[in-house]
Order: sequence, then structure tokens, then C-alpha cells
Amino acid sequence: MTFESNIRPIQWSGDHVKLIDQTVIPYECKTVDIKTWKEMADAIRDMIVRGAPAIGVSGAFGVALAAREFLDSKDNEDFIQRLELMGQYLKATRPTAVNLMWAVDKQIDLAKSMAGSISEIAQGLEENALRMLEEDIEINQKIGEHGAKIVPQGATILTHCNAGALATAGYGTALGVVRSAYAQDPTIQVFADETRPRQQGARLTAWELVNDKIPTTLITDGMCGYFMRRGKIDVVVVGGDRIALNGDTANKIGTYTVALAAKAHNVPFYVAAPYSSIDTSIETGDNIPIEERSHDEVTHINGKTVCPEGVNIINPAFDVTPAEYITGIITETGIYAPSELKQAVLSGV
Amino acid sequence: MTFESNIRPIQWSGDHVKLIDQTVIPYECKTVDIKTWKEMADAIRDMIVRGAPAIGVSGAFGVALAAREFLDSKDNEDFIQRLELMGQYLKATRPTAVNLMWAVDKQIDLAKSMAGSISEIAQGLEENALRMLEEDIEINQKIGEHGAKIVPQGATILTHCNAGALATAGYGTALGVVRSAYAQDPTIQVFADETRPRQQGARLTAWELVNDKIPTTLITDGMCGYFMRRGKIDVVVVGGDRIALNGDTANKIGTYTVALAAKAHNVPFYVAAPYSSIDTSIETGDNIPIEERSHDEVTHINGKTVCPEGVNIINPAFDVTPAEYITGIITETGIYAPSELKQAVLSGV
Repeated sequence: MTFESNIRPIQWSGDHVKLIDQTVIPYECKTVDIKTWKEMADAIRDMIVRGAPAIGVSGAFGVALAAREFLDSKDNEDFIQRLELMGQYLKATRPTAVNLMWAVDKQIDLAKSMAGSISEIAQGLEENALRMLEEDIEINQKIGEHGAKIVPQGATILTHCNAGALATAGYGTALGVVRSAYAQDPTIQVFADETRPRQQGARLTAWELVNDKIPTTLITDGMCGYFMRRGKIDVVVVGGDRIALNGDTANKIGTYTVALAAKAHNVPFYVAAPYSSIDTSIETGDNIPIEERSHDEVTHINGKTVCPEGVNIINPAFDVTPAEYITGIITETGIYAPSELKQAVLSGV
Repeated sequence: MTFESNIRPIQWSGDHVKLIDQTVIPYECKTVDIKTWKEMADAIRDMIVRGAPAIGVSGAFGVALAAREFLDSKDNEDFIQRLELMGQYLKATRPTAVNLMWAVDKQIDLAKSMAGSISEIAQGLEENALRMLEEDIEINQKIGEHGAKIVPQGATILTHCNAGALATAGYGTALGVVRSAYAQDPTIQVFADETRPRQQGARLTAWELVNDKIPTTLITDGMCGYFMRRGKIDVVVVGGDRIALNGDTANKIGTYTVALAAKAHNVPFYVAAPYSSIDTSIETGDNIPIEERSHDEVTHINGKTVCPEGVNIINPAFDVTPAEYITGIITETGIYAPSELKQAVLSGV
């Protein structure tokens, strides 16, 4: 059963993209107009749009915007070269989530494969970006449908960061599972980790779920062990930014600590993510690059410092949860144990 | 070897107490004058002063202030009755740390045991509070001395919350261990957990250690697993708000999650605390009451909300780390495995 939710962080207006500005939620909900590929690159880097599937779809639109800007290319070869150079830049804005690379490469491969004029190719890229947007929502609804099966009656689901409608083209991965489970059983509830440093749990997940009237409790990141020991958490469901073939999963910093707590209390721990988050070029999580972000994210909240000057900061944006801590990976084609993932993906299930 | 540190959060001026206002650090360092027992009760409740040993010593001064206010009592019996009633109120301001109960009871027992006039008893209580303050610093220096032995050469020590000079009469328990270890080996360093919701790690621990020029890295609470997996943390040392006879330890919320991560990575996990933090009336941590604090601590940082309205909050201020996760308890008389603690304490070692 699909839950009705109309949060759409990425919309195509006909000649530009409208992104919900995720840096100002929950204080306001406004959109930003993205008219050039460079504006899109900046929006991804500055996390106006964030979440692995959402930056994938945004990357696809970035290529479509670039194609419109490159209509004055000398010839098709020049056009493709400019697209490829731009693609390198766009893909480098966020290094960990693989969906961005996947989507940009997919668009550029399409451009290369198309016969026709530059403007016909540009038109094709726009249509394909729109298709990827629609497909992402459908994929999330399928993830939700499969994932709802692992949510026990009346369960409390713990999630970390935001793998919701805002992190995708709509509906969400981990929160897609929540939405589909809630549609079947309105006695379930969510515990949302705040997710310092950027507080996507407090700002985005809580905002989405309050909007959708799904009962949600916000906790600080250190509390997960406390609530698990008291038996308050029945299942953990998180998103994934990049999944290796053995099931090792990069996700927002703090996810691994939650996984350790879940393991210690025998709480099932699931990753909900589309195939586009699976990096078929890497066998294990050791090969996943971890983005290091600005120290300001740790030292400042709402523009005000929270610590003295002179303290050192390290700010890895992601961590890798090894496959052994993951009960299952919920995808659009079903739920796989980490050990089953490689075969499912490579056989094209 | 003792490290030179002159942070003194509690000072006696001759007729009132000066408390460093810990709610405004690191933005400013100012003291607040506490002239009545009721002002002391408010200061403890509002966390102007916090940390188990510090609120113990503050409670002792609260009794001394009350005695000066009760000089007009009808007779000694009336005086003691008023002190006892006041003591009930004072002890209820923070329910988890046992040092507050220990210190207030110790003062009232002293008052009951003293012969002499009311004003002589009041004078005795003032002198005893001063003695407890000095003793607390000495105890912490002994804790530091014993604890330094478990810090490997060049180690990185992870700590949670603030068990520093600010949490005691001076020097600190967990940070006493850090200070003594650093005096012997200036190649050690500290990782400080931010410790949401109140950020005592970012605001207080980082401030103390930067002041003392001990190299310190601030991390968010979810990061501990990441750094442990990478082998960056050699030992965890935290304080304790109440320790049961079996070694189960209540400490700031999030401590247990750190202990789970430490166990999973075979990182030794120590609690540093004086005997006054050991509750000899309880066998296990199941009997420790957990203070629930204001939801604003989770929803607001520096006066600004960090989440939407309509989200539920639960804000337990402490959690209990079971003895099985604790490598040793560092006290003023030495380091004990949790299983050795009961005998050491009850035999009065």
C-alpha cells in the first residue's frame, strides 16, 4: 500500500529546475530556481539538495541544463566534449554518494549514443532527466512496499539522517519503508536521530514526518544505545549513499555507531536503497571515498559557534557500516542479505 | 605527576559562594554570586554548576549557607529541623548524581553530631564545606595519578561530556586522568564528544583543554564508531554520576553508546570517579533513577529551535553502562575491576 505524500524536492518548470532549499527547513519551505549547470553544481555542493538519489536526479538535470547551454557548440563532437568536461566537475561536487556519478554518466552515455542534432540531443537529455525523476519515485514506492514487510506490527523504527522524500525525487527510501508500513499499520512510530553535524534528522526527517502526521520522536545521536537497551527500538532502517558488492554500506556519519548498538541488542538493521546506490565496480567498502566537509558544520549551529577557538575538528561526512552488521538491503526488486546482493545485482534481477 | 591547572568552579568568598557560570562558557567566563541556599538550589537545577563532584561540593556549601540563614532558629532542634527540610529540597534538584545526596547528608549528619551553639554549628558547616572542596581537589589529583598508568604512550583518549575541573572542585576526574597523563607524556591527545543535548563536550571539555593547551579534537557523538574502527582511539575515560556496587555506572546520556562501540573494537573503557560517586545502598544500576530534563535542551540550541513543532521529545539526562562494558573504575585509592569494587568500598580501602 502506498502512502500519499506530495513532498517533491526537485521539479522541472519547462526551462529550469526548482529545488526545495533544504538548508532552511524547518524554518521555511522555499524553492530555489536553478537555471544553469553551474548553479546545479553549487546547489549540490552546498547541500541545497542532498540525499543520494536526489543528487542523482539533480545531476541528470544538471546535464540537461548544460546541454541547453551548449547549443552553440561547433559540432556534435565539441558538444559531447563540453558535456564530458562539465560532467567531471559535476560529479566531483560530492564524492561519496555513487548515484551522482551513475546519473551523470548515464546522461552522457545517452548523449553519445543518440543520433540527431545537438538540439535534439538536448531535448532527449531533458526528457531522460524527467524520466529518471519519475522512475525514482516509482523505485522508492517499490522499496517501501518490500520494506514494509520487515516492520513488525506496532513497531518503533529508528532512522538516522534523512533518507526521505527530500533525499530522493519523492517518497523516500528508508522513509519510503516508513510511509508504506504506516499506510498498512498506523500504530507504528519513528525515532529520528538528530544526526549531527548537519542535523538532517532534526531538520528534515522530523519535518517530513510531522508534515505527513506520522508519530515521530526526535532523539540525540548518543541516545540510541539507551533506548535499544530498554527495548524501545524494534528495527533500524537507514538509507545508503554507496553500497559495495559485498553489502558494505557508506551512509551518513553516525550510521555505523547505530549499527554497533543494534548488533549488541539484536535489533535488525536494514539499509533501504535503489540499485543506483550500488557501486558494481567495488567489492568492499574499503574502496569508498569518504567526503571530508567544512569544519564549520561541527563548530557552528545556526551561524553561532558551539565551542571555543583552538580546538581541532575532523568532519567525515560518512562512515561505512560493514556487511556483517546489516540484516538486509531493501531494494526495488526485493530484500537481500548482504551476501546475496552481488548475485542479485550482477544477474540484473 | 600533577598538572598545573587553576580552573576553580566553586569558590568561597567568606560570606557567599562564587560559581563559574557554566551555561555561558565558552562565550564568556563569569562568576555568579550565590548568597542563599535557595540560590544554590536554583544554580544546581539550572546547571550553572554541574558535574557530580561539583554539585556535591556545591550542596555542602548550600547547607552552610542555609545554616547562616537559620541562625534565628528557636533552638538547636528547630535549627536541625529546618536544615533537614532544606536538605530534602536541595537533594531533589538533581536526582541522578549521588554526590549531591552524599554531601548534603554528610553536612546535616555533622550538624546533628556537633555540640555547641547554632552559630558554632553554622561555623563548623562552613569549615567542613571548605574542607570538602579542598579534599575533592586532592581526590581528583589522586584519581589522575592512578589513572595516568592506564594511558598508553602517545595515546588518544576519548571522553564524553565534561568530567573536568568544571565538573569538580578542580582538576577533574576523567580530565584529571588526562591532565596527569599529559604531565608525564605531552604526546597524548584527547578526542572530546560534543555530548548533545547540552554540548558539555564542545562547550566545557574543549574550553578547559584548550585553556590548558592539551591537544583536543572535537567530534560529534555519532562519530565514535568511525574513529574506533580506524584505530584512532586507544582508550575511553569518562566520569560517573552514580556507581552501583556491582560497577554499573550512570553517566551522561550517550556514555553507554560509546561503551558499546568501545567493546566492539576492544578499546579499554574506564570510569574515573571518587568514592562519593559510589552508592553503597544499591547493588546494580537498575536502581538508579534517571533524570528527565526539559525538552528545550533537545529542541533548542543557543535559543533557536533546530526542529519543527509537533515532534515528540524524550530527554533522559543519563544512561547506565553495565559493569560488563567497563574495564576499570579509577578511584582515589586505585583502579578496580567492577567485580572488585564492592569489596574495596565496603572494606574501606
